[in-house]
Amino acid sequence: MMIDEFDFIKSVRPNKTHHKDLVMGIGDDAAVYNCKKGAEQIVCADTMVEGIHFTKETMTPFQLGWKVLAANISDVAAMGGKPDYYLVSIAMTKDWLHQAKGIYKGMEALAAQFGMDLIGGDTVSSKHELVLSVTVIGHVVASRASLRNQARPGDAVLVTGTLGDSAAGLALLTKDMAIDDHNDSQYLINKHQLPLPQVTAAEILAEMNERFAVNDISDGIASEANEIAEASQVAIKINYENLPRSQALRHFDSTRQMYFMLNGGEDFQLLITAPRHKVEQLIEHFKGHDLLLTKIGEVTEGEPGVTLEVNGGEERLEKAGYNHFRADEG
Amino acid sequence: MMIDEFDFIKSVRPNKTHHKDLVMGIGDDAAVYNCKKGAEQIVCADTMVEGIHFTKETMTPFQLGWKVLAANISDVAAMGGKPDYYLVSIAMTKDWLHQAKGIYKGMEALAAQFGMDLIGGDTVSSKHELVLSVTVIGHVVASRASLRNQARPGDAVLVTGTLGDSAAGLALLTKDMAIDDHNDSQYLINKHQLPLPQVTAAEILAEMNERFAVNDISDGIASEANEIAEASQVAIKINYENLPRSQALRHFDSTRQMYFMLNGGEDFQLLITAPRHKVEQLIEHFKGHDLLLTKIGEVTEGEPGVTLEVNGGEERLEKAGYNHFRADEG
Repeated sequence: MMIDEFDFIKSVRPNKTHHKDLVMGIGDDAAVYNCKKGAEQIVCADTMVEGIHFTKETMTPFQLGWKVLAANISDVAAMGGKPDYYLVSIAMTKDWLHQAKGIYKGMEALAAQFGMDLIGGDTVSSKHELVLSVTVIGHVVASRASLRNQARPGDAVLVTGTLGDSAAGLALLTKDMAIDDHNDSQYLINKHQLPLPQVTAAEILAEMNERFAVNDISDGIASEANEIAEASQVAIKINYENLPRSQALRHFDSTRQMYFMLNGGEDFQLLITAPRHKVEQLIEHFKGHDLLLTKIGEVTEGEPGVTLEVNGGEERLEKAGYNHFRADEG
Repeated sequence: MMIDEFDFIKSVRPNKTHHKDLVMGIGDDAAVYNCKKGAEQIVCADTMVEGIHFTKETMTPFQLGWKVLAANISDVAAMGGKPDYYLVSIAMTKDWLHQAKGIYKGMEALAAQFGMDLIGGDTVSSKHELVLSVTVIGHVVASRASLRNQARPGDAVLVTGTLGDSAAGLALLTKDMAIDDHNDSQYLINKHQLPLPQVTAAEILAEMNERFAVNDISDGIASEANEIAEASQVAIKINYENLPRSQALRHFDSTRQMYFMLNGGEDFQLLITAPRHKVEQLIEHFKGHDLLLTKIGEVTEGEPGVTLEVNGGEERLEKAGYNHFRADEG
C-alpha cells in the first residue's frame, strides 16, 4: 500500500499523553505546555545522519530511534534534569517510509520509561539520506543545573557505569573484531544499539543539591574531561587503572580496551566532579539505586587540561572524538 | 583555510544574548532558562531540505536561514505567542561549510527583530544534501493560545496581509514566468526570499483576549482553512473576490493569481476566525499598527470543509499544498 506524508504522520501520532501540564500536543501549529513551578527548562537537540552516525547494517530503525532520543536525554541528565517532551524532525527518502515507523516505536519505548510525550516535529522528504533531528525539553529544580564550569581544585572525579562498551559493540557489529563469548558479545552490542541514559543518576545529583560539574560521555571520556577542565579552568588527573570496565570488555587486548574506554564515545555515562568529602555519601546513594559510581581521579589547580596516569607514568590526554568536516574523516 | 566542526561552531556562536531569563545558552550539554511567570511555553520545529524546499539558485544562504526561522516564528505567532529562543540542527556536505555561516547570519538578522537567542543545536556532516532543522520556543499568556479548534458558526474569517506573493516570487525566480515591472517583480521575490512572520498581529490577538482560531499560511489558504474547519468541526465559506492581493500580483493572468492565492503557500500570513461583533475593532487595532487585516468569509454550521464563492457560484475548496512522498511529487 502506498502511504503519503499525512498517513505517515497519523500513524506515528501518539494516542495518549503522560503530562497533565501539556495544553496542546501534536495537531496545531505548535505545542503548548505549562512550566513546572520552581523549575528551570532544559532544552537540547541532536541529529543523526545515515551513513555518518549509523548504517542500516548496524542499527534497526527501532534502535536508531531509541539511540537518538537516548543521546538527547543524556544531555538533559548531564544538566541534572528530567526529560519531559520531545520533537522529531525527519527528512527521509521514499524507501524509508515503511521502516520509519520503527524509528518512532524505538523512541516511544524509551520515552515511556521516563513518561515523555512526543509533542511535535516535521516530516519531509529527502533525496539521498535519512536525517533525524530530535529536540528534547526537560526541567530541573531552579538553580540546581549541574554545569560544566563547576569543577574546583580538590574535587574528586567520578564516572557512572562502565566505559567503552558501546564502541566495543560497534567494533563487533562491523566485524572489525570478534570475541568468543556469545553472551558478552551480545552485551556489548546491546550497549551500542540500546544505550540507557543516566536519568536516575541525574536525579540523585539534583536531590543532593551540591556543587557538581557534569558532562555526559558522548565522544569519549578524553573529550568530556577536557571540556570540564576548559569550562572550569582547572586541571584534571585521571588514573587509568581506576576506569570502570565491564567483564565483556576484557576480551579485547589492552590497547583496544584503552582506546574504547578513553575515546570510544556513545556510552552516555555521566562524568562528574564532586567535593571530595561528598564522595562516599554519593557512592552510597548510587549503590542504593543499584547504580555503579567509580572514583577515577581528581581536580587540581593548573593549566586547563587532562592528565592520564598510566603504567606508572603520566601523559597528556587530548580531546578526541569524531570531528565532522576534518580532512581525514571523510 | 580549512575549517572544521569546532571552528565552525565557534564562528556561529552568539557573543551576546538578549534574554535575562537565560541561565545557560550554548556551551554546555543543554540550554537552561527560566519560564516567564504566568506564561505557557510554545514549541515547534521545521525542516528544510536542499533540492526539496529550496535550491542554491533561488535562495542565498542568508535567505535560507531567514526563511526557515521565519516559518517557525510564524507557527509561534499562529498560537498567539512571542518567540524567545531557537535551536539549529544542520547536516551539511563539506562544500556548504564556508557558506553555512550565511545561514546563521540570516537567522540572526530575523531573530534580532524579536530579541530571540540562539541557544543550541547540532552541527554534523552529511554526504549529499543540506538538511536544516530549526526548533523555536516562545511563550503566550496562560490560556490565551489561539488554537485551531476555536472557530464557531457565526464567526468571521479574516486574513492578514496579502496572499500569493511568495509563490509568485518563486515563479519569477525559477523563470517559469516573468513580468515587465521590475519593482513589482523584486517585491514578489522579496516576499519569497525574506518573508516576515506576523508576530505583531499575534500580539494584538493575545492582548484582546477573545476566542480566536488561528492558523498560519504555510501551504496555502485552501489547506489552512480546511485545517481550521476540521479541528473546529465547522464549515467555512470564503469569498474569492475579497481575498487581499498585492498590486504586484495583478500582473499575472487571473488563473495564476487564483492558484497563487489559494494554493501558493509560504506567505506566513495568519488566517483568523473571530466573533463577528469583534471584527471592526480588530481591523482598527491592526490599522493602528499599520497592518492589513481583511474579512474574507464566514464560519457556518455544516459538514467540516471549505466552500469558495467565485464567479457567482460556489465550489468545494480542497486541501492542497505539497505532500511529501506522494507518487506524483517526486
